[in-house]
Amino acid sequence: MGDRKISRRDLLRFAGAGGAGLTLGAGGYATLQRATDTRDAGDAADGLLPGASKVPFFGRNQAGISTTQQEHMQFAALDLVTEEVAEVRDLFRAWSEAAARMTRGEPAGEENYSQFLPPDDTGEAFGLSPANLTLTFGVGPSLFEKNGEDRFGLAKAMPDALSPLPPLTGDVLDGARSDGDLCIQACADDPQVAFHAVRNLVRIARGLAVVRWSQLGFGRTASTSKTQATPRNLMGLKDGTANIKAEDTGLMDHFVWVPQGEGPSWMAGGTYLVSRRIRMLIEVWDRVSLAEQEGSIGRHKYSGAPIGKEDEFDPVDLEAKDESGEPLISSDAHVRLARQSADEKILRRGYSFTDGFDAERGQLDAGLFFISFQRDPHRQFVPLQQRLAASDRLNEYIRHTASALFACPPGASEGGYVGERLFESV
Amino acid sequence: MGDRKISRRDLLRFAGAGGAGLTLGAGGYATLQRATDTRDAGDAADGLLPGASKVPFFGRNQAGISTTQQEHMQFAALDLVTEEVAEVRDLFRAWSEAAARMTRGEPAGEENYSQFLPPDDTGEAFGLSPANLTLTFGVGPSLFEKNGEDRFGLAKAMPDALSPLPPLTGDVLDGARSDGDLCIQACADDPQVAFHAVRNLVRIARGLAVVRWSQLGFGRTASTSKTQATPRNLMGLKDGTANIKAEDTGLMDHFVWVPQGEGPSWMAGGTYLVSRRIRMLIEVWDRVSLAEQEGSIGRHKYSGAPIGKEDEFDPVDLEAKDESGEPLISSDAHVRLARQSADEKILRRGYSFTDGFDAERGQLDAGLFFISFQRDPHRQFVPLQQRLAASDRLNEYIRHTASALFACPPGASEGGYVGERLFESV
Repeated sequence: MGDRKISRRDLLRFAGAGGAGLTLGAGGYATLQRATDTRDAGDAADGLLPGASKVPFFGRNQAGISTTQQEHMQFAALDLVTEEVAEVRDLFRAWSEAAARMTRGEPAGEENYSQFLPPDDTGEAFGLSPANLTLTFGVGPSLFEKNGEDRFGLAKAMPDALSPLPPLTGDVLDGARSDGDLCIQACADDPQVAFHAVRNLVRIARGLAVVRWSQLGFGRTASTSKTQATPRNLMGLKDGTANIKAEDTGLMDHFVWVPQGEGPSWMAGGTYLVSRRIRMLIEVWDRVSLAEQEGSIGRHKYSGAPIGKEDEFDPVDLEAKDESGEPLISSDAHVRLARQSADEKILRRGYSFTDGFDAERGQLDAGLFFISFQRDPHRQFVPLQQRLAASDRLNEYIRHTASALFACPPGASEGGYVGERLFESV
Repeated sequence: MGDRKISRRDLLRFAGAGGAGLTLGAGGYATLQRATDTRDAGDAADGLLPGASKVPFFGRNQAGISTTQQEHMQFAALDLVTEEVAEVRDLFRAWSEAAARMTRGEPAGEENYSQFLPPDDTGEAFGLSPANLTLTFGVGPSLFEKNGEDRFGLAKAMPDALSPLPPLTGDVLDGARSDGDLCIQACADDPQVAFHAVRNLVRIARGLAVVRWSQLGFGRTASTSKTQATPRNLMGLKDGTANIKAEDTGLMDHFVWVPQGEGPSWMAGGTYLVSRRIRMLIEVWDRVSLAEQEGSIGRHKYSGAPIGKEDEFDPVDLEAKDESGEPLISSDAHVRLARQSADEKILRRGYSFTDGFDAERGQLDAGLFFISFQRDPHRQFVPLQQRLAASDRLNEYIRHTASALFACPPGASEGGYVGERLFESV
């Protein structure tokens, strides 16, 4: 495998392809992908050659988790319609192959030039850079058991950590936008590249799985690398200051990656993905004072510093008092309740979303598509969210409207596929 | 007016603002906007100083029309709830002032630091570059007459060119996503900057107007400058090859800008905006052969060249025949029917969209949010679209699901506001 070389001959072959129409091979196509990109900021800014903005698909862990967070996301959850476990396995094999190709900047499949067939690739990413595309796959609890039924003979391989999340205080979940048998998280620095990837993967799944729900995200709401500035969410607040950073490999190993011997062996090197569609009640938030906004979060709005401090990364001092002896960070401030105990740290990787205006009230349907990765959601995400749901003052301004949980298997080696050890076990 | 200078003193004032909380003025804020941007590709690639990626709001014409097309769009249509024309005028004044500030990279309003008030600006664009933000305002036919009523005493100022579009063959329009009293087109190279602008303008309109519909767009589907490569739409086709380019000022003057003496004087230097939400039947398109895809459009898919030609910009030869004497470009090919007669040229400025999957059929709700600007939609857009609607083979793969028409007044001078000559006339 590895990357194709771009030869001058390839370029010349492409130049003539408009007229000939039938003669251009996949090599020439890959060349086109690389040669004509006009958008990729990373390359231009870094002075790197085109094609450098690629994240390898194969590896010990799946990409898109510790990867430096990209600017755009397209997420899709699918439900299986096949009843054959062999077809599910074949789907993961085909998905991994297509994902590896697309993350290298190649088309999803090889056959794109026969006049008599539909092209394997839908074409809207032709000429764009790979834009750091990552594709991360997961499987939901319902793959293992649905309505009490062991659909695919996989029930014995179900990890305890994948048990459905318990009901959480304040949830107003839309079932049609929650859960799913499978998930695809596509992240890239170009939204068209992320869209193209999900569209082609959904197409490959035709007859086997159908989309249950999808979500488009922009403007990352966390940083997963020390090289990134902390972004702002749609409340105008810096978000994810205290996030785990991928450079902290000790923290990643302790809090994110499932170690060998914990749960079924097919999940060693994997992780669990929690997604929560958190709608912000933006019109309400926008009408309250700066003091209330800062008090709710426990940080200064513009600097992101803890209240009473000057720098975003100053440590949060929960004991600090003001002149009248009141705590500077109130008992219901988000930053106090969200402080993770030694057991609860999670890797956040969310995005802002806007799905237009809801027709009933003419209000923005926008907010945060929260994604976290953790070794065990029941020991990390659940207690953290229970505490927030019970007392966080921010609850007045948000609603959790959808929820999902997926197990993301470890990465695949070249020639292998994601989920291999799960499906080879049956 | 003009841009604020960034002084070292401003930077120092900001550095201390986290603790002090109350002392930072708008100058310091503007500094923050410019100093910490980490995203703006244009600047980095061009080697320009931060702050250079700005498009002036004031000018002879409104920005966002001949402006080199940005990568992201947030469009909103609003309906007025006020019955006072003076309040509509004041809204346009307030919008223009906020738009001028935001396109310079400043907050929407001046008061952001009082602990006792809601901030004027919602904050999610703090620290981001202006990202070539443009804000383009328009007024719909219903501003002048609604249900036969002259709501604001403006009926006499209604241009003939703004008469509602006639029914067009094949339209399946959703009224809730069509039309509107007012529109805002926000375009930027960062989606969060576009979102922020519309959100703050909608907020300024509170009590006067409510959002009727909105649309998020990515991946421009036209080029408005000779410096831009032709992008691909979600059919994988190069789109807008034959578009008017802003450098052709003669064509712009002839086909886009309303000349003095044509219609009411308040529209001289303005233009008319047609928007069409065109859903693509992607699952159907993806199943047809390359020959059918290329035949439908009349161009080669990968090169964008007219069928039988080699280069995208080779002229379309409608007379060319294949070896058996059949026309290379068939009678129902899009490129044949979309060839604009001398009277029909339009400036296209559309975007791709994806609004998730429609729950009923599990199919992608995605396509092209078509926007065109023209001097007279009834002489340009309407005959062109009638011809396409009647015979275009692409109709098998698309549905026009929403439509709107707006008059975009000329640009404002510094100190003035968009729509000034309309509202000063009553």
